[in-house]
Amino acid sequence: MNISQAIAASGTTSERDMANAIRFLAMDAVQTANSGHPGMPMGMADVATVLFNRFISIDPSMPDWADRDRFVLSAGHGSMLIYAIHHLVGYSDMTMDQLRNFRQWGSKTPGHPEYGHTLGVETTTGPLGQGITTAVGMALGEEMMAARFGRKLVDHFTYVIAGDGCLQEGISHEAIDLAGHLKLKKLIVLWDDNEISIDGATSLSTSMNQPMRFKAAGWDVQKVDGHDPEAVAAAIETARKSARPSLIACRTTIGKGAPTMQGSHKTHGAPLGKEEIAGAREALGWPHEPFAVPAGIKSAWESVANRGLAARKQWQERHAAARNAAAFDRTLSGELPESVFRKLAAFRKEHLEKATKVATRQASQMALEVINGATTLTIGGSADLTGSNLTQTSQTESIRPKRFKGRYVHYGIREHAMAAVMNGLALHGGFIPYGGTFLVFSDYARGGMRLSALMQQGVVYVLTHDSIGLGEDGPTHQPVEHLAMLRATPNINVYRPADIIETAECWELALRDRSTPSVLALSRQGLPMLRESGSSENLSARGGYVLHQPKGKRDVTLLATGSEVEIARKAAEQLLDLNGISAAVVSMPCWEKFAAQDQGYRDEVLGTAPRIAVEAAARMGWDRWIGPEGAFVGMDGFGASAPAAELYEHFGITAERVAGLALELTGRAGA
Amino acid sequence: MNISQAIAASGTTSERDMANAIRFLAMDAVQTANSGHPGMPMGMADVATVLFNRFISIDPSMPDWADRDRFVLSAGHGSMLIYAIHHLVGYSDMTMDQLRNFRQWGSKTPGHPEYGHTLGVETTTGPLGQGITTAVGMALGEEMMAARFGRKLVDHFTYVIAGDGCLQEGISHEAIDLAGHLKLKKLIVLWDDNEISIDGATSLSTSMNQPMRFKAAGWDVQKVDGHDPEAVAAAIETARKSARPSLIACRTTIGKGAPTMQGSHKTHGAPLGKEEIAGAREALGWPHEPFAVPAGIKSAWESVANRGLAARKQWQERHAAARNAAAFDRTLSGELPESVFRKLAAFRKEHLEKATKVATRQASQMALEVINGATTLTIGGSADLTGSNLTQTSQTESIRPKRFKGRYVHYGIREHAMAAVMNGLALHGGFIPYGGTFLVFSDYARGGMRLSALMQQGVVYVLTHDSIGLGEDGPTHQPVEHLAMLRATPNINVYRPADIIETAECWELALRDRSTPSVLALSRQGLPMLRESGSSENLSARGGYVLHQPKGKRDVTLLATGSEVEIARKAAEQLLDLNGISAAVVSMPCWEKFAAQDQGYRDEVLGTAPRIAVEAAARMGWDRWIGPEGAFVGMDGFGASAPAAELYEHFGITAERVAGLALELTGRAGA
Repeated sequence: MNISQAIAASGTTSERDMANAIRFLAMDAVQTANSGHPGMPMGMADVATVLFNRFISIDPSMPDWADRDRFVLSAGHGSMLIYAIHHLVGYSDMTMDQLRNFRQWGSKTPGHPEYGHTLGVETTTGPLGQGITTAVGMALGEEMMAARFGRKLVDHFTYVIAGDGCLQEGISHEAIDLAGHLKLKKLIVLWDDNEISIDGATSLSTSMNQPMRFKAAGWDVQKVDGHDPEAVAAAIETARKSARPSLIACRTTIGKGAPTMQGSHKTHGAPLGKEEIAGAREALGWPHEPFAVPAGIKSAWESVANRGLAARKQWQERHAAARNAAAFDRTLSGELPESVFRKLAAFRKEHLEKATKVATRQASQMALEVINGATTLTIGGSADLTGSNLTQTSQTESIRPKRFKGRYVHYGIREHAMAAVMNGLALHGGFIPYGGTFLVFSDYARGGMRLSALMQQGVVYVLTHDSIGLGEDGPTHQPVEHLAMLRATPNINVYRPADIIETAECWELALRDRSTPSVLALSRQGLPMLRESGSSENLSARGGYVLHQPKGKRDVTLLATGSEVEIARKAAEQLLDLNGISAAVVSMPCWEKFAAQDQGYRDEVLGTAPRIAVEAAARMGWDRWIGPEGAFVGMDGFGASAPAAELYEHFGITAERVAGLALELTGRAGA
Repeated sequence: MNISQAIAASGTTSERDMANAIRFLAMDAVQTANSGHPGMPMGMADVATVLFNRFISIDPSMPDWADRDRFVLSAGHGSMLIYAIHHLVGYSDMTMDQLRNFRQWGSKTPGHPEYGHTLGVETTTGPLGQGITTAVGMALGEEMMAARFGRKLVDHFTYVIAGDGCLQEGISHEAIDLAGHLKLKKLIVLWDDNEISIDGATSLSTSMNQPMRFKAAGWDVQKVDGHDPEAVAAAIETARKSARPSLIACRTTIGKGAPTMQGSHKTHGAPLGKEEIAGAREALGWPHEPFAVPAGIKSAWESVANRGLAARKQWQERHAAARNAAAFDRTLSGELPESVFRKLAAFRKEHLEKATKVATRQASQMALEVINGATTLTIGGSADLTGSNLTQTSQTESIRPKRFKGRYVHYGIREHAMAAVMNGLALHGGFIPYGGTFLVFSDYARGGMRLSALMQQGVVYVLTHDSIGLGEDGPTHQPVEHLAMLRATPNINVYRPADIIETAECWELALRDRSTPSVLALSRQGLPMLRESGSSENLSARGGYVLHQPKGKRDVTLLATGSEVEIARKAAEQLLDLNGISAAVVSMPCWEKFAAQDQGYRDEVLGTAPRIAVEAAARMGWDRWIGPEGAFVGMDGFGASAPAAELYEHFGITAERVAGLALELTGRAGA
């Protein structure tokens, strides 16, 4: 008899009863809410019961215990599965009233599980494929922390329940390819293989041999009857011993237990109806009222928590005895040493004096060299554009299969997975991940980036080649709408620094904001240093500031970001030299931070003179800053393939054009 | 001796010479441009030569011949491969000067191949994975046209050259799963298996067994030495006979022919340098000047064109003799019968009289029932949300493997592939595809949607559940920034209709715009009919219009879209009833169309009274319409899980709040 059989045999309550408790809580909660997804919790109740009852090590009384197993419900619509289990094992926030308030305002039981909102929810899921990919990040984080601190402190599994939807989404390919490559052996995915999706049978849209697909990616694969607890347990036992990530294909019946509807897509996303639920009570021998769980069954579930509590205490003993406990705790806290910021300030001072001229992508690498030297928390990476994004530094050795001490992830040509894996690393704890691609390919990463924002994870997106300034690669590679898209997204700070000084400042701000993801939009092309003041203040922290204040009264204010600040600065010079017009130049590296300043500061920066904004991107959003009388110089369509300087000419994003508009706005056009 | 061997043996110029012509044109053009990607054209020159020399049927003198083979360079960065071939086979626009002007402003040779810009380029590629997925749409289109018009008129292959990048991107999973499922037997993918990506060896980031992966998806798979013409030819012969889509893994050496650099990632994305190119000339025995191709080699390439010309003429004879030629031509033209618009107008009249109250997603389905009954061009589909998007109608039978007469594609849980496959269907010709998912999941489809816009393909995105109005599914499913993101994208019309009348109007506009993709953002929740005028004019065509004009002078103007127009209308009623304030209500279903109106019309609609905008989305962009004194009622963060009505209350998007702001703006707050 192995451990899991011993556990299974020890209780008087059967796992069948424990699973039925999930089923009825799910059915009744969805019925009460009159919306939700009962089919998946019912279908996977047996698998989840075995997983939690025999294997998972969590302590509901300390949900953030560092060495807990991570459980990710990738099929997030089946949220009642996790809520029911959390209630049964005794998470303090998951009272029966919360289940009664499923999907209601202010409840701990939203439609899809939300990280930070409900105790023990490891990551927000719902957008399909995100969970399994974020779990790859968590499993990678586990290996990396273990490589740093040893298996006495770090030794946990990452379990995922994924549905057909997760495995059809493209991001799942990126996830399993990367996980198989890196041999993330402690990642175990339980696939709810119920052959049903929303439209009907999965045979409507797929003929994929999933086991073969996962084998091709280097995974171990097993197939079991998802309603046979011993088979499920044996498969999990085997998977835990594997040297590779594991897929367990669990053949299940969706809505298992619904007498007339089980096996049908009709159980997927709507209440079953009172009659069907009454029938289920009869069929499964569950005479209990809605939201009532017999004490014996509740107590069987609580033994899961008791086992976890004991494991947690044992771990705390190991932790107390570990020489590296303090370092472990410090790393896990994610707190940056103050020296990072001190050294960044010194870096700024040095380059302010030198007036260093570099592309902001290169400035970013120079700043990273400082940052990565001052902390080991930062984990770099790129979606196969390392030499273009300039994201690797002398300290960040590449991570390779089974070699996890490194600090640089070759994410491959997988922007979407990069975003979600970075989320997983951040959620695991112990890391501040940053990753690079071209700004235009934030399109591919959108799904994961939105979750960074929603989950308040301070990951950093290093998005280079941020405009037509990338030149010859042409319109497919030239972002136009992407700054607007990212600025419109709640809880993302979009930085577009103008020179090496602002780049270092923006990196500092990105590192300080641990609950807001940051985008650094960086130039491919070289840029001069523009900062005029010798002050050590981080001016980018205000989001926008007067970079150049003319002598005397302002006639016009030129607003710009990134590579276009140079153009605005040149226009100001021309206006003064040729026309005697005083133009202020305002650099706006971060709209979000500028919008957060008080009205007085903003009014002072923006001034009362006519305003012209210059940004090699879509106008969307600029009207807020330039007002109805203002002008905008930027893109009103897609880019083109040509050397950068010619593109700026052809699209009219030039100092001459800005100066000409300034003459018009100040009524001096004919002068 | 089979056909391809016969062709190979017939010339005196060897395919090796023909391939070297590609190699040197690529090397020299990249060197001259001082940017570009020589490695792939050099590595795949042998494969491409065999493909074109022995198989591909195209007629450069008639690039849009309907039954041509489609060739898709999914690895679009290797654009010099296609430009070199196009020059050699004699496309009229691809002169040697164009090759000399590679990547220069105004040339036919942009950095990545662009559809509509260069003759014979079937689709824009560069963003990796788009090409192979668009090709799935083309191959599907071929089967569908063949099912409708027979193999005498429709019998061509779709060939793809894809690199490691394409196969690492998630979208490739969605593509090959769908293609394998549908058994698209005339799709042949030649994989440039060179084991190199930008960062270095592919072993840095992947251990995928690609052949096994494609087999798992139901593809036929072969492996060949990509520098052995007979092996490549034999594999293509076999693939052409397969009953399934085919992958041919071509093991190649990147930069083949560069004496010291071949096989290295350094040949991927930068000029080789003059010395290396001189060495290549020596090594490959190519004594010719840059941009000089010996007549014999040119003439060997021209025989490809001659073979295509003959095939095209034979096809034209078949076409002339075909009874269904006129119907075929009409379908291929994509021109909608006027009856579609007549019937939509009648539909509007009917529901204006009935004052039909439905969710706009349901109104969309009702309009589609009319549209799909009046034309067979429309091809519906959904990313597994058919019952939610309401995209299927009585006329659109589902397409199934090997059964291509249907008009509805079950795209599966694959939003990204849906977008690219729709692009492929549209590019193939003969179809007007529309496809549904939730608005929030436009995040997943962004890459493909951007290419719809860039390629000017009038596909229609039916994006339902367009705000917090979807209710209990919560913030992961509630779009906030997506309207701004799509509005910021060039050449997309974003429609957000307010009622059944506007929905029908917007569908009409979407169908009329054949070179601009459309987004229909539609409500989950029921909405009243709001149109006040009994006129038959399509008011949505102006983008924004005065829905409700108060008697007397306007005190305030309320701007809104979609489901929030009802709120604005209620606020106007309250303001009149309780405060005697005259509020105009402006519905703005399409910003792009409104922005395109003349200033006079816009000024008239927006008026001079204070303005308040109401939209359950991010503010980004609204400042343009409300001005600096205006107010905005909408979302300033993510949504939440609760019934829709409660969410509107909690986020303050209510008639009461709008009315309260109107009182403030009109100085009547204390009144």
